[in-house]
Amino acid sequence: MSMEFKTIDWKGDKVRIIDQRELPLKEIYLDLKTPEDVYYAIKSMAIRGAPAIGILAAYGVALSSMKGDKEKTIKDIKMLRSSRPTAYNLFYALERMEKVVKENFDKEKIIEEAIKIHEEDRRICDELGKLGAELLPDEAKCFTICNAGALATGGIGTALAVFYKAKELGKRIKVFAPETRPFLQGARLTAWELNKNGIDVTLIADNAMGFIFENEKIDAVFVGADRITMNGDFANKIGTLNLAIISNYFKVPFYTVAPTTTIDRNMKDGKSIPIEERDEKEITEIKGIRIAPYNINVRNPVFDVTPNELLTGIICEKGIIKKPFNENIKKICF
Amino acid sequence: MSMEFKTIDWKGDKVRIIDQRELPLKEIYLDLKTPEDVYYAIKSMAIRGAPAIGILAAYGVALSSMKGDKEKTIKDIKMLRSSRPTAYNLFYALERMEKVVKENFDKEKIIEEAIKIHEEDRRICDELGKLGAELLPDEAKCFTICNAGALATGGIGTALAVFYKAKELGKRIKVFAPETRPFLQGARLTAWELNKNGIDVTLIADNAMGFIFENEKIDAVFVGADRITMNGDFANKIGTLNLAIISNYFKVPFYTVAPTTTIDRNMKDGKSIPIEERDEKEITEIKGIRIAPYNINVRNPVFDVTPNELLTGIICEKGIIKKPFNENIKKICF
Repeated sequence: MSMEFKTIDWKGDKVRIIDQRELPLKEIYLDLKTPEDVYYAIKSMAIRGAPAIGILAAYGVALSSMKGDKEKTIKDIKMLRSSRPTAYNLFYALERMEKVVKENFDKEKIIEEAIKIHEEDRRICDELGKLGAELLPDEAKCFTICNAGALATGGIGTALAVFYKAKELGKRIKVFAPETRPFLQGARLTAWELNKNGIDVTLIADNAMGFIFENEKIDAVFVGADRITMNGDFANKIGTLNLAIISNYFKVPFYTVAPTTTIDRNMKDGKSIPIEERDEKEITEIKGIRIAPYNINVRNPVFDVTPNELLTGIICEKGIIKKPFNENIKKICF
Repeated sequence: MSMEFKTIDWKGDKVRIIDQRELPLKEIYLDLKTPEDVYYAIKSMAIRGAPAIGILAAYGVALSSMKGDKEKTIKDIKMLRSSRPTAYNLFYALERMEKVVKENFDKEKIIEEAIKIHEEDRRICDELGKLGAELLPDEAKCFTICNAGALATGGIGTALAVFYKAKELGKRIKVFAPETRPFLQGARLTAWELNKNGIDVTLIADNAMGFIFENEKIDAVFVGADRITMNGDFANKIGTLNLAIISNYFKVPFYTVAPTTTIDRNMKDGKSIPIEERDEKEITEIKGIRIAPYNINVRNPVFDVTPNELLTGIICEKGIIKKPFNENIKKICF
């Protein structure tokens, strides 16, 4: 299936992205021409979503290489690596790009590698969606959080791909999308893209998650991942841990859906995942309007870590990984 | 201890309230002169919080009685009863007022009864606070949700009274306050009143509850209640169920703090509590700014029901009620 918009679009000498800060009210596209443009697009969250920032960073390296200065490109890779700390796909994509840059500083090969990373992600999204969709009965009621959709990837999404593929299979599904404070990716992005692509979506406050589980029969929960560690602990958007604990309480299967490029082979468990904390204004202001008192303490962690015990399975392109994750991630993925 | 503001202030011929829709940026007081004024103040959430709306409704009856028309006052009681559906204190206070109105339509006695309801609540708040504060060690870290403070009652609050009394006892405490979407009572009211009264408060997104429990040692959770049923199931602000499930997962004691006027003797369990659903604009707009796409489904339940199994105890003016709630509520309260 094809989406009604393009998240990342390589144009040969620049890369065009949809500015996700303006959604859902305005559909504005930005042309990024330099690695600095790419860095700021990632840092400012014009683009977000672990696979999408990996792909865009790869194109950032491609744009850099076109200037013909290898040392500058190596510096640019370092700069791009520092744009955001939690999503592993960023480091994975930049590692692949760095290898090609260092081996053979050939512009064509470098661009080709970035396009390959994008293409692989697109294909993987389809596979993830198919695997997840097979788990669902007809008339399924599902939950997600944040946006792990076409806007977060190079294809039709990770968690949201499950819903797109279920629809292709003729299954009627209903999705509950928490608004996902503080950045409102659920309200602004998931409600927008599911609705635009014909999926029945209901927006709720994050606080209403428990209420919905208590009052509706939820069949399964699908969320994305920003980094999966070798024991199955994983980081994802803040609130995922709330949702995982609630799913577990109501005995509803809880899956993370992610390409294996999200798995950090060098990290044993979730304790070491660096968690980004962002500007407190994301909490105290909305669109420039103050909604909290001045001079108070604020914490704004934007990811949390869900322990493996709350996870039913990891849906990746190699299959559905189940417990014990410690053994099975190693066996199936590497 | 006395608060830095007055939530409800009887002036003899009118009742003055602080307009909670304008907090924390503006401290505006409204003079209510008729039962209709009171009805709209409750309905529009200029005032909220279960004990506070009970008290204000009682003053609404007092204002009505001053016109000297008993039939009109009986009608006004009916109108006031329909202002909001979930909080039991509203029905409790109106039942008491109706009894006095029907027995003896004497303006003085009716006003006296309203003042008595207010005074009783003020005294009970102190008692609740003391009982809760004794449970806390020095340097305790606590959680609450929404606003169960001086702004929600006739005194120093229910859940927040615990923190005020702990401070009086010289205990250093730290409170985490989730912003409490959709109406942001945590950000706008709890952060404001705790800060104003010298309590160390940290504001977080509702989604960060699990993260904070995972990363800090939380000693106890205190929340208010809008209606407690005879088996200990209770309704409170949407998100309370999330917090209860999360506390339970992290094995942190979870208390609801409420006067016995919150207990509905005629309700066996939480299944029958009527849950108010409010305008979807509370989700799709903030201060008139659209934050979600148009033409999508929205659910906006504003209370949820926490099952008794997640509750460590009910702190009421008769003591701390523990399991089995079925037996102990009857034994201790009635």
